[in-house]
Formats: sequence, C-alpha cells, structure tokens
Amino acid sequence: MPDYQAPLRDLRFVMDEMFDFPGHYSRLPGGDEATPDIVNAILEEGARFTREVLLPLNQGGDREGCLLEGGDVKTPRGFKEAYRQYVEGGWPSLSAEPEFGGQGLPHSLGMVLSEMICATNLAWGMYPGLSQGAADALRHHGSEAQKATYLTKLVEGEWTGTMCLTEPHCGTDLGLIKTRAVPNDDKSYSISGTKIFISAGEHDLAENIVHLVLAKLPDAPEGSKGISLFVVPKYLPTASGEPGERNGVTCGSLEHKMGIHGNATCVMNFDEAHGFLVGEPHKGLACMFTMMNVARIGVGIQGLGLMEASFQNSLAYACDRLQMRSLSGAKAPEKAADPIIVHPDVRRMLLTQKAFAEGGRMLVMYAARLVDVVEQGQDAAERERAESLLGLLTPIVKAFLTEVGFEATNEGVQIFGGHGYIQEWGMEQRVRDARITRLYEGTTGIQALDLLGRKVLMDQGETLKRFTKEIHKFCQAESENPTLKEFIEPLSKLNTEWGELTMGIGMKAMNDRDEVGAASVDYLMYSGYVALAYLWARAARQADDALGGDEDAFYRAKLDTARFYYQRLLPRTRAHAQAMQVGMESLTAMEPDAFGLGFQV
Amino acid sequence: MPDYQAPLRDLRFVMDEMFDFPGHYSRLPGGDEATPDIVNAILEEGARFTREVLLPLNQGGDREGCLLEGGDVKTPRGFKEAYRQYVEGGWPSLSAEPEFGGQGLPHSLGMVLSEMICATNLAWGMYPGLSQGAADALRHHGSEAQKATYLTKLVEGEWTGTMCLTEPHCGTDLGLIKTRAVPNDDKSYSISGTKIFISAGEHDLAENIVHLVLAKLPDAPEGSKGISLFVVPKYLPTASGEPGERNGVTCGSLEHKMGIHGNATCVMNFDEAHGFLVGEPHKGLACMFTMMNVARIGVGIQGLGLMEASFQNSLAYACDRLQMRSLSGAKAPEKAADPIIVHPDVRRMLLTQKAFAEGGRMLVMYAARLVDVVEQGQDAAERERAESLLGLLTPIVKAFLTEVGFEATNEGVQIFGGHGYIQEWGMEQRVRDARITRLYEGTTGIQALDLLGRKVLMDQGETLKRFTKEIHKFCQAESENPTLKEFIEPLSKLNTEWGELTMGIGMKAMNDRDEVGAASVDYLMYSGYVALAYLWARAARQADDALGGDEDAFYRAKLDTARFYYQRLLPRTRAHAQAMQVGMESLTAMEPDAFGLGFQV
Repeated sequence: MPDYQAPLRDLRFVMDEMFDFPGHYSRLPGGDEATPDIVNAILEEGARFTREVLLPLNQGGDREGCLLEGGDVKTPRGFKEAYRQYVEGGWPSLSAEPEFGGQGLPHSLGMVLSEMICATNLAWGMYPGLSQGAADALRHHGSEAQKATYLTKLVEGEWTGTMCLTEPHCGTDLGLIKTRAVPNDDKSYSISGTKIFISAGEHDLAENIVHLVLAKLPDAPEGSKGISLFVVPKYLPTASGEPGERNGVTCGSLEHKMGIHGNATCVMNFDEAHGFLVGEPHKGLACMFTMMNVARIGVGIQGLGLMEASFQNSLAYACDRLQMRSLSGAKAPEKAADPIIVHPDVRRMLLTQKAFAEGGRMLVMYAARLVDVVEQGQDAAERERAESLLGLLTPIVKAFLTEVGFEATNEGVQIFGGHGYIQEWGMEQRVRDARITRLYEGTTGIQALDLLGRKVLMDQGETLKRFTKEIHKFCQAESENPTLKEFIEPLSKLNTEWGELTMGIGMKAMNDRDEVGAASVDYLMYSGYVALAYLWARAARQADDALGGDEDAFYRAKLDTARFYYQRLLPRTRAHAQAMQVGMESLTAMEPDAFGLGFQV
Repeated sequence: MPDYQAPLRDLRFVMDEMFDFPGHYSRLPGGDEATPDIVNAILEEGARFTREVLLPLNQGGDREGCLLEGGDVKTPRGFKEAYRQYVEGGWPSLSAEPEFGGQGLPHSLGMVLSEMICATNLAWGMYPGLSQGAADALRHHGSEAQKATYLTKLVEGEWTGTMCLTEPHCGTDLGLIKTRAVPNDDKSYSISGTKIFISAGEHDLAENIVHLVLAKLPDAPEGSKGISLFVVPKYLPTASGEPGERNGVTCGSLEHKMGIHGNATCVMNFDEAHGFLVGEPHKGLACMFTMMNVARIGVGIQGLGLMEASFQNSLAYACDRLQMRSLSGAKAPEKAADPIIVHPDVRRMLLTQKAFAEGGRMLVMYAARLVDVVEQGQDAAERERAESLLGLLTPIVKAFLTEVGFEATNEGVQIFGGHGYIQEWGMEQRVRDARITRLYEGTTGIQALDLLGRKVLMDQGETLKRFTKEIHKFCQAESENPTLKEFIEPLSKLNTEWGELTMGIGMKAMNDRDEVGAASVDYLMYSGYVALAYLWARAARQADDALGGDEDAFYRAKLDTARFYYQRLLPRTRAHAQAMQVGMESLTAMEPDAFGLGFQV
C-alpha cells in the first residue's frame, strides 16, 4: 500500500540549479562520462528499480524477518532475487574505480541512489550498503593482493562485506575489545572472539562475505592504540579467487530488534578464523575510521530517505482522508468532510517533513559534492579544503538528519492518526526503522562530541570559520536583495552567533573538558539548524531567480517551504542556544547516588 | 530483565509534602477511611502487585500478542491469572461508590495505582482501564436499572467495559458515524455497524464485556448532534443479572500494531445486536465526553508511568555500563572504563527523563486532587472552580505528558545505545507502547484545539486567568526568598507572557479561526512547560524548606532537578513562543497541489 516516487524534480533543482553538478562533474577525471543525459538515465533507472523491485519487498521483509537455521541465515522472501537484479544492473560498481571493475562514475551519484534505496527498503539496502564501507577500507588500506582478491568481488557485488567492531561489553569504546589475533607461520592470523550487532553478518544473498574485523595482536598496547584491522572471509579464496574452504567464522544468533527486521543483525563467533592484516599493525582504528566516515554519511542518507518516503505517504493520505470541516469554513462542501490537508496543524506536520526532507537533500548533496572532490579532485588545496569541510559536516549529516528524520517519520504516523499505528499502512515501520539511525555508527551523543570536540575546537574553530565565512559571503552578496531580506537577516545573525557560542564553550572547556560534553548535543542540533538555514536561503534565492517561467508553482512552493523553515523550525535555535550556554553545573551537580532516591528504598 | 520500583518516596513528597493530600482526604466525604496509614498500605500493596505480578508479564505479552480463534480472543500467557488476582485484591472497586459495591476511596488513589500499572504493563492495564471509562459513563448517565445491572459488575471487575467510537472512515469526526440503532418493540434497540480500534473489545479475562457504543437513531439530525449512546453487552444479562444469551456483537479481526501487543485491538461487528439507550436520544456525545475526559487523564498517566519505568532502567544501566573515560579525568580508575553516568550528555538524558517524570507526577497529582473535588467536593463553588481548572489541564495532562513521555522513553533507548534497540532489554518496547499515547483518545493536535479553542478562548481566557493568578500569587509570596530567585524570576516572566501570547492569538483568531489551529500545538507545548515550571518551583520551595534533616540528599536532588528543568528544558518555551506568533500564513500559503511537486511528475 505505501508508495514512493523518487524526487527527481527536486534532485534536478538541488543538483543542477543550486549546486551546478553538471559543471562539477565535467571537472572530475572521467567526468565526461557523467553527462546530464547519462546522469538522468541513471537516476530514472534507479527510481524504477527502487520503486518496482525494492519497495514491494519492504513490508513483507519487516513481517518475515530473517531466520537462522543450521548456521545459515535465510533473508525474507524476494530479497535474494532483488539483490541478483541489483548486481546484474551494475549498481554496486557505479562509483567504483575502473581498475577494480568499477564504472568510475562520481561518488555523489551513488549517494543519490542510496537515498532512493533507503526510502524504499532500508533493511535490504544495508546488505549492499555495508559492502561499500568494506570496499572503501580495502581500497585505502589494503595491499595490492587484497584489492585483487576482495575488492573486485565487492565491487562486482558477487561478495558482500561487513564491519565487525562491537563486542558485548564495548561499542563506543573500542579500546576495550577482547578479540585476539595470533600470528600464524604463513603470515595469516588466527582470529578468536565474539562480535555483536554485525549487520549483514550472515545471509544468503551472495556467495561469500568479507568481514573486516578489529582485533588485538598479542603485543598490542592497551586501549584504542592497540587495535589492528583484519580481513576475514567467510570462505577462504582459492588460488583462482573463488570461494574455497569454510573459515572459522559463524553466526551464533540473530538479534530481535525494534525494526530493520529484514536485515540480519548477527552475533558473529570467530573461532581461530584465518584473517589477514589490513594496513599496519596497531593502526586499525584509523582504517576503521575510513569505513566509518563513509558509513556515517550513509546513515544520514538513511534518515533522509525515510523522511522523504514518510512525507510522500502522509501527503497522499492528507489529501484523501476526510475529517472535520476547516475552522474557517468548509473547503470541500460537496464532500462529507474536508480533506485533512485543510487543517493548519496537519499542514504544520507536512511542512515539517517537507522542509527537513528537502533541506536534508541539499545538505547531503552539498556533502556529496565534497566527497567527489576528496575522492577525485585534481587540485590539492581544493581537496584539502573539501576534506576538512566534509569532516565538519559529517557528524551533522549523520546526527542531525537522523534526529529530524525520526521526528519527521513520527509526524507521518501522527498525520495518519490511529491508522499510523497499524502495520498495514507502513508508517510505523518507518519510525521503527528510523530509530536505529540515531544509534548505529556512533550515537547522536558521539557525533556531537566528534563535531564540537574534534572537528571544531581541536583546530581552534578554523574549519568552522571556513564554513561560516562562506555563509557570510553569501549573506553579503544578497544583502541588497529585497526578496531575500526575510532570510538573510536572521541567517546573518545566526551565523555570527554560531561563532560566538563556539568561542564561549571553547573558553569554558579550557577550565574543564566536561563543558564540551555538556554543550555538545545542543551545539550539534543548533549547527544543523543553521546549516539548513543557509541552504534554504540559497534555495530561496535560486527559486526566486527562476520565477517567471512555466514552473512557477514549483518555485513558489520552494519559497513557501523556505519561509516555513525560517518561521516555524528555526526558532528552535533559541532553545538550543540557551541550553548550551548554561554550562556543565546543571548536569554534573547531582551525585550519582542521588538520582534514584525517589524510588529506591 | 527490566525492573521497576514504585516511586513511593517521591509520591510521599508530592502527595504529603507538596499538596497536603492527608488534609485534602480528611475533608472528603468518607475521607476518614483514607488515613495516611491506609493510603500507605494501599500504595505499598499496589507497588508489590504491579512489580511482582504485572511486570514479569510485560515482555512476554509483547512477544506473544493476542490471538483470535473462532471468534474468541486469547490474551497472552498469565494475563488472565493476573486479572483474577487484580479482582480478588479488590483493585477495580477502590475508588467506586459504596452503593455499587465500591470502596469509596478517593479517585486520586486509583490514579496513583494507574501510574504503577502503566509503568509495569501498559497493554494489560488497558483491560481494567477501559472498564473505568465505561463505568463512569454509566454512573453519570445510566438509568438506575442500568447501574444495577452493569455498573456493579464493572465495579467488581467481573465484567469489563469498552468504548466503541471509531469507525473506518471516522475517528476524530464522530459526526460521520454510520452505525445505526433501530428501535425494537421492547424499548431495546437493534444496533448494526462496524467499529474499529476497539481496545479490549474481545478477550478471555472476564465473563462478559460491556460495550458502550455510539450509534445514530433513524430520526437523528446530521452530524455530531445526532449521536446516541448505547450499552451493548456481549452476553445479554438474565433476570438475575448473570450472562445469558450471546448478543450479536463479534470481533471480526485484530489489528497488528506497533506496540501494546498484549492488548486486543479489535474490529467489532455489530449485527442487529441488542442495545439499550444510555441517557437521552441524540445526546450521546456529551455522555461520551464524560468517558473521554476520564480516559484522557488516564492516557496522560500512561505517559507518566512509561517514562518513570524507562528512567529507572536507564539509570541502572548508566551506573553499570562501563564505556570511555570522563573527559575531565578517570572517575573509576580501578575499572576498565568509567560508568557512563559520568558523561555529561548521559546525565542530560537521565535528567530529562527524571525532570519530566517527577514533574509529570506533580501535574497528575495536581489534577488528581481536582478530580477528587469534582467528584466528591462538598462546596459548590469549590467544585465549579475545580471543574473548570481540570477542564483546562486535561488536554495538557494528556498531550504534554505523552509528547514528553515519548521523548523520555526514547532517551531511554538512547542511553542504552545499540542495546536499547534490542527487544531483550525492554527499552524499545516502551517506545512502541508510548507511541500510541500521542494518538488515542484524541491526538495531540486535537488536544491542542481543545485547549486553545475551547478551554482558553471560548471563555475569553477566564479559566486560564484562574490558573495564572494562582501562579502569580505563588511568585509574589516567594519574591523575597533568595534561594528561589532563580525560579521565581523566569516563572513570573513566563506567566505574564502566557497571558500576552493568549491575547495575541485571540485577536488574530477573530479575523480567521484558522489562526487557532495554526498556533495550537505550539501553544499547548508552551503551556505544558510553564505548568511544569510552576510545579517545579513549588517543589523547589518545598525541598528548600525541608533541608537540614536526615534526608538532605533527597531534597538536594529535587533542587538540582528543578534547576536542570529551568536551565535546560524551559528554554524550549522560546521556540514555541516564537513559532506560535508567526501566524497562519506560514502554514496556509501553499496550494495543496504544490506540496508534492518535487516528486510527482
């Protein structure tokens, strides 16, 4: 029953009209392949594939879940066939390098496809999604032999990948891991330990699974500086590169989760499994961050996809469902009641979804352009600039888009009323699926520490200044534009305040580092609202410029949505700004023992 | 694995220290029964019953759900036995009138018990919970014969009740119902139609089920003024009042829902079922509101119970789980890592839960005291005052406590990280269970219209003024108290602003009624934050007064939590105040056709 249309018109607006992707692509090596015609054809085919193949499997996958039988995991009906079509369609190799069998198209294109996949079937999308992270780690840190053996298979989609980090007693704090790697005589290692929460750890979609595993060598220093990365295939490749002997890695059990039921979340047991070191000994955490940064942007895109899908279905329902009359007089007097889209509060919820989804798309594509430059840019200074800006934006993309994604999917349930709570309509599934995005690949709290502690304060705000300077320039350039006044004035103020707030926290943090943790989540949310405000102001300018043609309704809707965002959502910065300034005392005053005195006896 | 201790110490603080319930009870008729000793004994026994009997059935009930077989509904294992113990313990009759077999204790006591039930097993609690609403409707509107036949059975708990309002095409808009009631020769009616979302509509806990059904008589006027209320028993009572002939009402199917799996949410088919008119013809909506107001407070209590339970388990986990070192230096150097309660952001989440749960408890008990006065007060003027104040607070209790309840249970998942997403710990179940509370008995949007449109603007803000005057007096009385300055100053400002914002919206609404809907949800949330600020200031005063004895740690924790609420949560009023003032234009500007132009082709 749920439907989805890839937002192709909106993507054209963001990619072509706002960010000049055609020009950007033409400047990338091999970019002559990514002509507007080719890009459009890919997006249209992606829209068809996700709508016709993935979407129909989404609710069934949720109901059926995965099944562990005799060590094998059976994915829900249709998942395997859909994966076959995905591989045959050449999707896994879209953005990969030609030398490993890839099509060499820009990474940003793959990210657009990701949005469509996440919007239609998040649980399914995690199988190929995890492969990308694994491929990236091997591409950056693997030996030539490892690339030849594993990377090509991942790029073709014949094999899939995983990231094996978490253990029962440690998730965030990877320094505590217990999985051991003992050197064998043949340069391989013998890996033993238990990993939990391994997405796509075992399944029936592909003939082999390439686990990237964090473990400790016998001589490893304590803590996170003593972690090494290993590649541990489910089947050890033969000399000809085909799956050979079964390795000592097995799925012990599947987790029962709130959502993403179609994805197998595995407890993985490594029992003297053969593994091969990736990169240097004890330098595994750096390799893992390569995977994790890709994955974090990917999770932000999950939030985006889910909110777009929720929005589209909410809108259809709001236009269809008749209930009550408009307070200002009947709007559809010929019907038994008015469609609920006439009610201002229903519109408030729809516009919240729309403003976050479309704003989120701008943020993702802004980041995607940086990803292209980091990966393929020809100018070193430009690459360095893109890398630092992307580092700054990654925790915002991840945490802000998943926080507001959860809100937006919940508004979807709310618009449906009681019907939203029933499985049939698919609205509650999106909430359950969205709930994990605030947690995995680092919770919102961890992203916030990364943003404020590492990305902002560690370089004395230099990277942040690059971004706020860009906003400042935009505000200056538009300062005489009367149509934009309603956006530029508040944006300019917020942009200045962002720097001041940062400085204030930085000063406090010099006295006590806990001030960083005390302000971090409010700081992250504040930053997200300001970043989106900048992008919505740019969208408004673009839309305003384009008025006067035959798509005025589209551009006016953009301006209206920008206005809604500024008037209705941006005021939340007031709450975050106040809360982040009160300091740690409000959080640290209470003794741990005193928290529970109301119920403990 | 989840645990729960009834917050008896905190209840004593709220009931005895803040609101003088002992004095209040002594002034109620029959209040000499509700001595502090009896009240304590009841609360302790309630704490034991809910912890030992209901809590262990909560996760199993969620996993098992209800089963419809041959028209009968089987509830999860243990539910029936728990209900038997509940009835044998005399719990259903606690607050009912002695003339119908009740124990005549104050209603507020039953509400305290409700919190414990909702905290331990919401799905189970809905079976007896629905009976209360049905009993209330019969008590207020039923004939003497109906009371003798049905009310006594409901009070004893031998039979349970339902509210049959919603139909497939109408939930909020009950004027659209299609269920018909045709008069028979014997003064009974023949009821035909389909009702959906009927909680506890069919089950195996009790020998009979008393449905209260909205239907239309043949001569009914159009719309909500043409609705009548009928009592339709599953088994028609014999002359001696025992279940006799099976009536034409059957469960057609069970809904598959996001949560509250242990409760049977039924499609109920009425096929020429015998029904009996309750109250006057065409006046059913008024009767239904009697049930609904009780039920709305009840749903607010559900939000409270769920957040308290989530808080307690989050706290235990945060003290136990070791992960990372405190940014300001190791706090538990003897352990592998620090317990996560040392991290400021974890404390922010815990304190958010604590401040909302304890503040919510104050709000519920403030309302509960009013309920006692409305039901049993001896002074007409006092009764009238209590009734109007309760009317004002009911939508706030319902919507605010379920909105923040959802947030707080989600913080619970967040504190557990990935483990919160796994069924095992019970944290995600509370989120799924809490999600329905924002929807049923009127969504947050509907509560907000009730608050702003009916309760505030319809009497030109008179009732609101009664409440803000009370706050004003409190602020004046404490204006010289230096310890309270940090609370009284902001509270006093907010209290003034509350009136000004109301006036501003009222003026705009005179031009266009849609201004009410455009401001309503922000207005409701704002009102909730201010109401809780008032109660937290009172709690702070009480705690400050009590300092110097041997419970200083408890009272200091109260002061710290009050401070946290003021510094960290109250700033959200800034966002709501701004958003509600921008007017309807930001919501109504866009044409319905323009919403989907980004994806429709």
